[in-house]
Amino acid sequence: MAVYTDVSDEELDAFISSFTIGALTSFKGIAEGVENSNYLVHTETGPYILTLYEKRVRPEDLPYFLALMEHLAARGITCPLPVKDRQGYALKELAGRPAALISFLEGLWVRRPSIEHCAGLGQALARFHLAGADFPLTRANSLSLPGWRTLFASIGDGADSVAPGLTAEIEKELAYLDKHWPADLPKGVIHADLFPDNVFFLGDKLSGLIDFYFACNDLLAYDVAICLNAWCFESDASFNVTKARALLQAYESERHLSESELASLPTLARGAALRFLLTRTYDMLNTDANALVKTKNPTEYLRKLRFHQRVKSAREYGLGKA
Amino acid sequence: MAVYTDVSDEELDAFISSFTIGALTSFKGIAEGVENSNYLVHTETGPYILTLYEKRVRPEDLPYFLALMEHLAARGITCPLPVKDRQGYALKELAGRPAALISFLEGLWVRRPSIEHCAGLGQALARFHLAGADFPLTRANSLSLPGWRTLFASIGDGADSVAPGLTAEIEKELAYLDKHWPADLPKGVIHADLFPDNVFFLGDKLSGLIDFYFACNDLLAYDVAICLNAWCFESDASFNVTKARALLQAYESERHLSESELASLPTLARGAALRFLLTRTYDMLNTDANALVKTKNPTEYLRKLRFHQRVKSAREYGLGKA
Repeated sequence: MAVYTDVSDEELDAFISSFTIGALTSFKGIAEGVENSNYLVHTETGPYILTLYEKRVRPEDLPYFLALMEHLAARGITCPLPVKDRQGYALKELAGRPAALISFLEGLWVRRPSIEHCAGLGQALARFHLAGADFPLTRANSLSLPGWRTLFASIGDGADSVAPGLTAEIEKELAYLDKHWPADLPKGVIHADLFPDNVFFLGDKLSGLIDFYFACNDLLAYDVAICLNAWCFESDASFNVTKARALLQAYESERHLSESELASLPTLARGAALRFLLTRTYDMLNTDANALVKTKNPTEYLRKLRFHQRVKSAREYGLGKA
Repeated sequence: MAVYTDVSDEELDAFISSFTIGALTSFKGIAEGVENSNYLVHTETGPYILTLYEKRVRPEDLPYFLALMEHLAARGITCPLPVKDRQGYALKELAGRPAALISFLEGLWVRRPSIEHCAGLGQALARFHLAGADFPLTRANSLSLPGWRTLFASIGDGADSVAPGLTAEIEKELAYLDKHWPADLPKGVIHADLFPDNVFFLGDKLSGLIDFYFACNDLLAYDVAICLNAWCFESDASFNVTKARALLQAYESERHLSESELASLPTLARGAALRFLLTRTYDMLNTDANALVKTKNPTEYLRKLRFHQRVKSAREYGLGKA
């Protein structure tokens, strides 16, 4: 939830005029998206989203993200499409920030996903993985094991202010993951942040995926593990195995999960839980109180991590050989 | 800048279904408007604004505001129009808050108003005053002299943390205004908050007025004084007499300002500056650091107050008998 950058009237006019999308008729900051400033733009030709990339996005990564959206859209994945200006550029600058205008996607994100929504998500995730198979660019996942170590080092003892003993608990978990993290699973382009607020539905039907600014090349099953964390826990922290089964079965209807991927799922889910525990802890400790950002609760992911630590096999996620 | 209230999927569906506006296709929180939660809603029939009224708006005042929008729209003032549900109600409830769906108004608010924008505003303000003449409802201005006293009392010595000696300065100003506040000027419906972010333009042409949630019955010239404060100072705190002249002349092209109104303008402008100095000081001292609200700087209005204290006659605002 953020709008960080003020855009002057003159800059905005010049920016919009560089496209062939007609005159501006409305321009409103959107209170969604933690990382960047997003504006809903209406012009004579329809609605668009304008994104100004703030400091947490590395400018050198932007061509990867924008090219990925084009690649996916060309393969039938409904996602926003970067709009090119009169000179053919999609990545531009506005108010001193990298900026892109992207097409507007219809749909709403669901606050409380149903079983049907989880199934829709599972199917879309698998299609995303398949569509990314021939994407030519690569980007390392800066938030995988080595990145977690760096993040943990920068948090220091601060984690104990989130929960007593958390520093030691994270240290122990990192040691476990160092030892057990799988290496030989299928790799490809992953979304890496496919939370409910990045998935649009019209009714029960999935209408599109958004926000590709964490996308990278990593284990495909790790993306599944992120979604198990993000979609299958109830607000009381209980794990809804029916939703997990729906998600996994729908995924498998499009892309088969190998025995090795299934066997690694509990470890991958622990890693995914730790990743969000770490970034949320970091954000809580480092967000300027004046920033217009509601930091997310890290302890939600501590509870999820502890759940996955007790999971023995993928059967407990509702799938696998019964 | 605020979205305070989370709306559940089921509540939102039920709310939208109670209107005849087609199915929801998009729902995004807007990062504008300090007092209420605003969402941009797209349905099959077009865009709308959904407002949830938060605690600073008294529910008993809402019929006044909604009826005023209807009254003004019927008299040619371009402003949002409350949409009535299947049962004929415009004022409804959503997520435990009073709520209204209003029509979407095209246009953008200007960050740095030009002379032309100030003229457009002056003309629109006068037309607003004329259109409100036969509005049958009344609402006292809770932020006039007695309200300022109450607000000042609740701030206490806190004002000194905004600027050294401010408490004494406000006390002295309140005494001056008590003595000199005009009583016999023309009264009517005033907007009372017609800042640039509440006035939409398409290019240089004014396209509409929004946010009537401070509207009340008070001195019409006080509304003019609020606009002089809000539109005619530059960001370096200097007063732009060319913009003020444009605003006042355009106002007078629609509604004549009497000799008494002009004579009172410096006093009214002092009152207007004090009103925003007080509310901004109160907000700065009382806003929860976790609220997604950027509090506005009170000292901007202290500088404006001091400017008006040195003004001897309306001539210095660019108008009046030369």
